[in-house]
Amino acid sequence: MSFIATPQSMHFPDALPLQSGASIRDYHLAFETYGQLNAERSNAVLVCHALNASHHVAGRYEGQDKSEGWWDNMIGPGKSVDTNRFFVIGVNNLGSCFGSTGPMHMHPDTGRVYGADFPVVTVEDWVNAQARLLDRLGITQLAAVLGGSLGGMQALSWTLQYPERVRHAVVVASAPNLTAENIAFNEVARRAIVTDPDFHGGHFYQHGVIPKRGLRIARMIGHITYLSDDVMNEKFGRQLREGIDLKYSTQDIEFQIESYLRYQGDKFSEYFDANTYLLITRALDYFDPARAFGGNLTQALARAAAKFLLVSFTTDWRFSPKRSREIVKALLDNRCDVSYAEIDAPHGHDAFLLDDARYMGVISSYFDSIAKELA
Amino acid sequence: MSFIATPQSMHFPDALPLQSGASIRDYHLAFETYGQLNAERSNAVLVCHALNASHHVAGRYEGQDKSEGWWDNMIGPGKSVDTNRFFVIGVNNLGSCFGSTGPMHMHPDTGRVYGADFPVVTVEDWVNAQARLLDRLGITQLAAVLGGSLGGMQALSWTLQYPERVRHAVVVASAPNLTAENIAFNEVARRAIVTDPDFHGGHFYQHGVIPKRGLRIARMIGHITYLSDDVMNEKFGRQLREGIDLKYSTQDIEFQIESYLRYQGDKFSEYFDANTYLLITRALDYFDPARAFGGNLTQALARAAAKFLLVSFTTDWRFSPKRSREIVKALLDNRCDVSYAEIDAPHGHDAFLLDDARYMGVISSYFDSIAKELA
Repeated sequence: MSFIATPQSMHFPDALPLQSGASIRDYHLAFETYGQLNAERSNAVLVCHALNASHHVAGRYEGQDKSEGWWDNMIGPGKSVDTNRFFVIGVNNLGSCFGSTGPMHMHPDTGRVYGADFPVVTVEDWVNAQARLLDRLGITQLAAVLGGSLGGMQALSWTLQYPERVRHAVVVASAPNLTAENIAFNEVARRAIVTDPDFHGGHFYQHGVIPKRGLRIARMIGHITYLSDDVMNEKFGRQLREGIDLKYSTQDIEFQIESYLRYQGDKFSEYFDANTYLLITRALDYFDPARAFGGNLTQALARAAAKFLLVSFTTDWRFSPKRSREIVKALLDNRCDVSYAEIDAPHGHDAFLLDDARYMGVISSYFDSIAKELA
Repeated sequence: MSFIATPQSMHFPDALPLQSGASIRDYHLAFETYGQLNAERSNAVLVCHALNASHHVAGRYEGQDKSEGWWDNMIGPGKSVDTNRFFVIGVNNLGSCFGSTGPMHMHPDTGRVYGADFPVVTVEDWVNAQARLLDRLGITQLAAVLGGSLGGMQALSWTLQYPERVRHAVVVASAPNLTAENIAFNEVARRAIVTDPDFHGGHFYQHGVIPKRGLRIARMIGHITYLSDDVMNEKFGRQLREGIDLKYSTQDIEFQIESYLRYQGDKFSEYFDANTYLLITRALDYFDPARAFGGNLTQALARAAAKFLLVSFTTDWRFSPKRSREIVKALLDNRCDVSYAEIDAPHGHDAFLLDDARYMGVISSYFDSIAKELA
């Protein structure tokens, strides 16, 4: 049974300038912390989240047995990231729908719900917002910043935006930018949401509806890209949902995989915000630190002063090992201190959230060595 | 400039029993033929089409310069499948929207448009319908049956349903069945169509609307799976559509790949029938000759008496070379005569429709050898 986690919230009255030129003021960040900040304030670990996650990284909520945080398998007392040694912070990003200020909240200038008027936020903006939170928590330098997928992009960006504030960066199942195919999947998901008649240009809240059809399609597409072909074949294969006879129907569920995807889509459409989906996928699209350097990733990463651990998974075709190796190479070009583990795991992109002895072993050893630096 | 092709149509009054137990009567098949049937009636080549194609395989229509058939690069006088030597037949499948009887036509029992009541058709049903057409054309045995992707499944099925009527089968970029991931992509596309409010349970014709939103999403998903990651990066990469500055928008087009996909989706939604899309993707899902043999493909292919050429493309992740090799292995287990070419091409699944010197060379040589058998 996990420990009890308590969500917190912090208000930021001052305007945060955004990469787009816009700004956002009077916003809240939801966050959680686990463990104790030491006297030297040197043992803080910031965990950055991916698309469908939040500040609730580990532990569970009082009285809610099934409310484990999304990285509870990795983070907690005695776990790979040991909260007996580290002060771990999870933050919900701006624009999300799990507690921090997002499209479903009130725009302080207009008094109306933001909806589609919520400003476009980038990975860099999130990192800036996280840095302000750390300022308020009195943390000058992180022992480590840690994230998977989109969270890994934030961890990488931390080392470029605040090189002096990060001692270690752990970048899991991530990429230096999205490929055309990655953007393509995001775009189809966004079009499914935007063209849902219940989207109302992003102002669906005042119509009392939710673009659930679009959200379902978006989530189904997402799920396909999170899993490997192999694990899908192993889990579902061509199994029928019922019996052994075909129904010969184009609309009824025939195969198990269809049932699984519809269930995932339905569930997601009940709790995820459509505008948040657009914002977060766009932040993914835009992330590209090499862009300002004519595409030269080595030059882009020259600012980084942290030590790095990169982890990728062999069957991850969304953010393949090749993409992690691009980051490793650019860091080595800059003579950075880099460790890299390519984990032979069958689960595709989802592997970064799952238990795997080798993966957990790599994370444990790395955080052990960070802890020894602190001692 | 290609030769002039002339579409034809044949009426079949008698009921065709379908695999589902239903039947269809009073239907038409649209078809085209190129070249001359020889005196021995031994030089006929049947070409089977994939999802978004038709009986218009080669040549162009009178007065329409840009109306080349979908395999015009491969089939015609002096081409790889040489219509000076072969009598080539293209047939539009039942349920399609390009001329043969489909969901937009009248149900002879009710006098109303079929819509969602069009019977579910399978690869096996299509092959049976094609066999009846050949009967009427006076062709007892095919020199070859040829198809790519879903067309390749039909070619393979011909060798199992009518072993004595096929001398050669050419199966390009195909598979012995769909994987869970393949079915998953089909299912998302179908859900996008079925949940479009303009679908009206498949009876949208009488409402005077078309579920274009769903068709667009379906086509965008399809296009992603037809291309390789590499070719997408090469053609589109992370290029912006306009200028060099980001717009910071979640709904406007920012990247070239978004523009391409939206264009393809829009175009498709103008001409493709939504019910046809459901039917054809379902036929793909259902195809699985090994199913009746407990998944044993070797046993399933034991009936085949044809000689085979299989072709796959290295970057095809929809129907990967691995899937073609499964067919090759099962045929070899049965001591069939099999040639196999794995073409190193960058274009993904789409490669089967494109010009590639090695690919065309393999097809040419194979059909040369068939022509020599005839002489």
